[in-house]
Amino acid sequence: MAVARRTSRDIRSESRLVVMRALLAAGESTRNELADETGLSPGTVSTIVGDLLKGGIVVETGLISGNIGRPTTGLRMDPDRGRIVGVYADVEEAYFEAIVFDAALGELARIEVQADVRLDDADEIIDRIVSTLDAALERAKANCVDVLGVGLLLPGGMQRPVKAAAAVPNAIWLHLDRLRDRLGLPVVVDNPLKAIATGELWVGAGRRYANLVTVNLGIGVGAGIVQDGTVMRGASNTAGEWGHTLLAFEGRQCQCGRKGCVEAYVGAAGIQQTLAEIDPDHPLASAGLRECVLGLAAAVANGSPDPAAAATIERTAHYLGAALADLVAVINPEAIILNGWMAEAFDRMLPTIRQRVLDDSPGEAAVGLVIEDHVVGGLIGIAAVTLERFLRDIGLVTTKTLPAL
Amino acid sequence: MAVARRTSRDIRSESRLVVMRALLAAGESTRNELADETGLSPGTVSTIVGDLLKGGIVVETGLISGNIGRPTTGLRMDPDRGRIVGVYADVEEAYFEAIVFDAALGELARIEVQADVRLDDADEIIDRIVSTLDAALERAKANCVDVLGVGLLLPGGMQRPVKAAAAVPNAIWLHLDRLRDRLGLPVVVDNPLKAIATGELWVGAGRRYANLVTVNLGIGVGAGIVQDGTVMRGASNTAGEWGHTLLAFEGRQCQCGRKGCVEAYVGAAGIQQTLAEIDPDHPLASAGLRECVLGLAAAVANGSPDPAAAATIERTAHYLGAALADLVAVINPEAIILNGWMAEAFDRMLPTIRQRVLDDSPGEAAVGLVIEDHVVGGLIGIAAVTLERFLRDIGLVTTKTLPAL
Repeated sequence: MAVARRTSRDIRSESRLVVMRALLAAGESTRNELADETGLSPGTVSTIVGDLLKGGIVVETGLISGNIGRPTTGLRMDPDRGRIVGVYADVEEAYFEAIVFDAALGELARIEVQADVRLDDADEIIDRIVSTLDAALERAKANCVDVLGVGLLLPGGMQRPVKAAAAVPNAIWLHLDRLRDRLGLPVVVDNPLKAIATGELWVGAGRRYANLVTVNLGIGVGAGIVQDGTVMRGASNTAGEWGHTLLAFEGRQCQCGRKGCVEAYVGAAGIQQTLAEIDPDHPLASAGLRECVLGLAAAVANGSPDPAAAATIERTAHYLGAALADLVAVINPEAIILNGWMAEAFDRMLPTIRQRVLDDSPGEAAVGLVIEDHVVGGLIGIAAVTLERFLRDIGLVTTKTLPAL
Repeated sequence: MAVARRTSRDIRSESRLVVMRALLAAGESTRNELADETGLSPGTVSTIVGDLLKGGIVVETGLISGNIGRPTTGLRMDPDRGRIVGVYADVEEAYFEAIVFDAALGELARIEVQADVRLDDADEIIDRIVSTLDAALERAKANCVDVLGVGLLLPGGMQRPVKAAAAVPNAIWLHLDRLRDRLGLPVVVDNPLKAIATGELWVGAGRRYANLVTVNLGIGVGAGIVQDGTVMRGASNTAGEWGHTLLAFEGRQCQCGRKGCVEAYVGAAGIQQTLAEIDPDHPLASAGLRECVLGLAAAVANGSPDPAAAATIERTAHYLGAALADLVAVINPEAIILNGWMAEAFDRMLPTIRQRVLDDSPGEAAVGLVIEDHVVGGLIGIAAVTLERFLRDIGLVTTKTLPAL
């Protein structure tokens, strides 16, 4: 990759993104308020708003009377510019979900499908994706021609081809052309880490922190890194794979093929393994992963006399705190936002996690650090990625770092 | 920290930095060549060159006849715009070094001082810094009034105040005001990680890679992260402290207070500890740290029959490769540049290190990764930081992320 030069087009692009995100946050706003909110000059805001009006992204909403001065024209993102569909395909768990959003990232309709058989064939998977998407569009009373883009959220993708058996989720990555042909629509694919980070940037904590890390906790664990209004992707879109950094050299076998990864200790399977080490006969040690983690959290929350559950949660909090301290050491963010279905399960452990992060982070790096739970869904995140892609296609932004799909 | 908005001033600043770095690389250049080299438009380059001429940073060198077209005006950074002094103070080893650079980062004179006593008193340390700097200026026949700024390079600073005894290097950080008063000059302070990364950006690999990580290997180890022309500093200037991320949970005691840090395995003391684990009676196990590491490397290079040395170097290469894979997972850079006095000692192990990085990195993240040795000195790096600070003071750049010193 050649060294990227930021041009005046890029700075216009960045300013447009800043204005659009501020508009989304406000719902309705005016040029003056946007200038105040963004720190951009009124002249720059006027120019940008002109570009966005011309691109049909923003609409005027009539005159607004403020406390002082003349009435000014209200502005908002135009929800009816089109529709964006986010589709989540968790092939491993045969779970599919689609949400139709308007162009202001408002949710219009949602469909969830739990298939009762494991899908092993790419054609079957593509069929499910298409039918879930169609059902969601129908529920939203939306027409295909209004769809600006489809964002496909795929977990996984981190298996090393040589070491691990080819996992099914990866199979889909190899058949995106077929999916695109079937849909006849622009398709953007990304993993939950990047999608959640993009979601925080557009509709979440990205408004409050210039440098933040989103941490996704579930079967898989990983991070999304936001720096100065941009999601860091790295040379080949794998930046943020903190779940596959070392917790213990030559430690537990991780599903990715490496030994000792963070995921092998704080991912759901890792937590179950910790429980089995503490009490091999515990009933949750042989339960499903989700049932196990939620069961452990519930036992601790209820104050049940279950010392193995308490010890597992406690030990996991230390693993997680230590692993988060590694992110603090390398990235030194202002905030870490915990996300994913397991984040809530660890809610009560936040003080322990915070203390461990503070103890293990270098120097004063974690002193001002905010650690908080937040739930920006992966699907609104992939919708934001898809919106960025559409904005790029119509020439309004230059975001270069989207995966070349 | 409020969310930073990039303004048109910032983009001008970035373009100016790009042009100055291209000029430094070329030595002498023309407006057209700079436009070709940087990808900026000829109009933008002309404007920028005008600003730099006005600021006295660049000078015209007369007409240059090219192969085609009319002769054009040559340009170069003006070395005589002033002097920049980089001072390295390794208080722990009582070692002081100062280099006087011209304003085009050319070295004019160097002084090295090895004190024969350990300095424990801040006044003594400040005296040494001032006298080393004065001696270097004298050798360079430079006058104090010509000095644009002094860059002070201080190792360490990562000790956690609570856990570790207050180390002497930190003491200096507390007395910078006194040093500034003594010198009567602008002083910029930074650690070697940030300085080396800034050096690569100005005069090294930063020209070839948009996203790179510099890794410093010595008594301490750490990283500098360069993303799109900027050194990542984080919320409190500690980004890049990879040396204090986990290699092994609850593993070896690190000097920073944490257990199991990368530095405790691949720093010089960690290597000696590995040797002592393999062969406690090995003569190098009780030698000085530098002597130990260089001795081990020499033994392996010479093919001496020293199985303990070979095993130590081999095991360290695996520790280092695994720890570098963690950087690949989180940052996903195009290149990792090894630096510091120990980098050379591991030269012969590069194939082992590379293979381990490839094996341990997630997915395909390390497939296109370049790992190479490079020696951009810390002092030219801190001089580049100082130059940036001077450029900011005269209004030519807006670089916001320098430590507030």
